Amino acid sequence: MEILKKRIIEDGRVVGKDILKVDSFLNHQIDVRLYNEMGKEFLELFKDEKITKILTVEASGIGIACIAAQYFDVPVVFAKKTESSNLDSDTYESQVYSFTRAKTYKIRVSKRYINKGDRLLIIDDFLANGKAVLGLMDIISQAGATLAGVGIVIEKGFQEGGKILREMGVNLKSLAVVRSFEDGRAILD
Amino acid sequence: MEILKKRIIEDGRVVGKDILKVDSFLNHQIDVRLYNEMGKEFLELFKDEKITKILTVEASGIGIACIAAQYFDVPVVFAKKTESSNLDSDTYESQVYSFTRAKTYKIRVSKRYINKGDRLLIIDDFLANGKAVLGLMDIISQAGATLAGVGIVIEKGFQEGGKILREMGVNLKSLAVVRSFEDGRAILD
Repeated sequence: MEILKKRIIEDGRVVGKDILKVDSFLNHQIDVRLYNEMGKEFLELFKDEKITKILTVEASGIGIACIAAQYFDVPVVFAKKTESSNLDSDTYESQVYSFTRAKTYKIRVSKRYINKGDRLLIIDDFLANGKAVLGLMDIISQAGATLAGVGIVIEKGFQEGGKILREMGVNLKSLAVVRSFEDGRAILD
Repeated sequence: MEILKKRIIEDGRVVGKDILKVDSFLNHQIDVRLYNEMGKEFLELFKDEKITKILTVEASGIGIACIAAQYFDVPVVFAKKTESSNLDSDTYESQVYSFTRAKTYKIRVSKRYINKGDRLLIIDDFLANGKAVLGLMDIISQAGATLAGVGIVIEKGFQEGGKILREMGVNLKSLAVVRSFEDGRAILD
């Protein structure tokens, strides 16, 4: 997606060896116009998949999931990361290891909101090691629902998540793929 | 806002003494059509305030902030709750006490994304004790920016947040106010 790639090159900042900071438009400050273009692109990519619901995980996936859901005209469900007294006790759960935070956390979705007949599109802002997507897929599988696709804003192509998911046969589409970093700049596919 | 009040009465579930669960449409599963109606209503309420940016806090404020931002045609900034290696070290910070979780957490916003000239609209899904909004106001004040308004989806009118903010002169508007619970049902203003 050219408009996104251009934005990553212009406004993304590379910190250290392999951290791409896109917090000026993607995951801290949000350029909602750009989100709308991304939402339309997700619809274009998955329009034949009969999506009934979009699934994401808090926090930074929620915005793009909601904006994209307008084009699909379906609800969003976001998995919760922390044990909260306000969450239903009757939940599907999965464990996710975060390399960024070097710890395992639990993600949970109330059993009320994913059903057998659902065809889910997982949307998230980043794909690196794929652990969060695999956790969401585990939850979809527990619910007996169907994974219809995975839409990612930025895939870190030098990490293993994309390879793992594609080898599993997952219908994965990324709007931009970062292949490597050279001289403090992101090199995109 | 009638459509929201109707939805709270029909689909909200009261758990225990004072927990209103609206996770079927507001903060776990999201009814994006309803979010759009709420976004338009926020524009109607704050259209004369020359809003330059919408500020919220992760996680459940992000969706409605993004949807509303489309109508204002401004960016969203969401405060982060956890210390993250991906967040800029140069941040405004504030402490927020959560009664739900019975602990204090830190919220942070990069100094890059709130500026002196900004007129901010704070948007959040719930207002109870007002601690999260007060933390966001503290950050706006540190940045030397202007608080132009606070838009809340559901205010718990029997808790003190609304009273505190209105007495401070804050331009606070709530789309629905829960006055009390009676026989397991929410009583709305």
